[in-house]
Amino acid sequence: MSRDPDAADDDALDVANANAAFYAAFEARDLDAMAEVWERSTRATCTHPGWPTLHGWVQVIGSWEAIFRNTPWIQFVLTDEIVEVEGDTAWVTVTENILQGESVHASSAAALNVFVRRTAGGGWRLVVHHGSPVASSDG
Amino acid sequence: MSRDPDAADDDALDVANANAAFYAAFEARDLDAMAEVWERSTRATCTHPGWPTLHGWVQVIGSWEAIFRNTPWIQFVLTDEIVEVEGDTAWVTVTENILQGESVHASSAAALNVFVRRTAGGGWRLVVHHGSPVASSDG
Repeated sequence: MSRDPDAADDDALDVANANAAFYAAFEARDLDAMAEVWERSTRATCTHPGWPTLHGWVQVIGSWEAIFRNTPWIQFVLTDEIVEVEGDTAWVTVTENILQGESVHASSAAALNVFVRRTAGGGWRLVVHHGSPVASSDG
Repeated sequence: MSRDPDAADDDALDVANANAAFYAAFEARDLDAMAEVWERSTRATCTHPGWPTLHGWVQVIGSWEAIFRNTPWIQFVLTDEIVEVEGDTAWVTVTENILQGESVHASSAAALNVFVRRTAGGGWRLVVHHGSPVASSDG
């Protein structure tokens, strides 16, 4: 709370950029870019919509490899993005409006992404991604 | 990383206790106890399984009131709980094995709970809860 407001704004912007890099890597289905976004550690954790939680970098990157291999194309329209920074940790809540598949199937997911500040070189790393399906209102 | 290991252990235990208090309040369907667990702020955020994300304490507590009113009983068996502490922020990933309803319907959810350290008086407050349905393997 005693932090410089300008520095806090910079932090929030940096986190928003890191979050954008995550979705850019997903859309591009670029495994190297996805690896660059993450903290590649044992505490890296990922919950894909409908999946059980995966723990540790080996499981996490394995899931992205499988998803990218089985996704011909995917596009995200992100709405309701809110960034919160608390010291060296930050979290982003965002609604993922998803277009994918040959039939241009549209769906929606609620995501919570947790980032930690890098100890050197600046920037933020994604340490937890949790996406969950949102039931359609006409379902 | 330079923190006293004993203090880090204490932090993780405190966070685990705060997480347990959240599920105890849920099982008891006790709105006052649930309010005590949370940081009652505009950044309080809650995603119930299948729901869109709710932002702000008024929306969050309103959702618990509605859920408690419509839940005759509910019981959680928690598995795979992992606590991570990063400065004044912590997050817990846990699998919620849920018994509820008159037919003892069993289901499973993946949860991510984010806590922040209280500025005074010690302890931790829940600031984000995100629960998502896990598809059953025989589904």
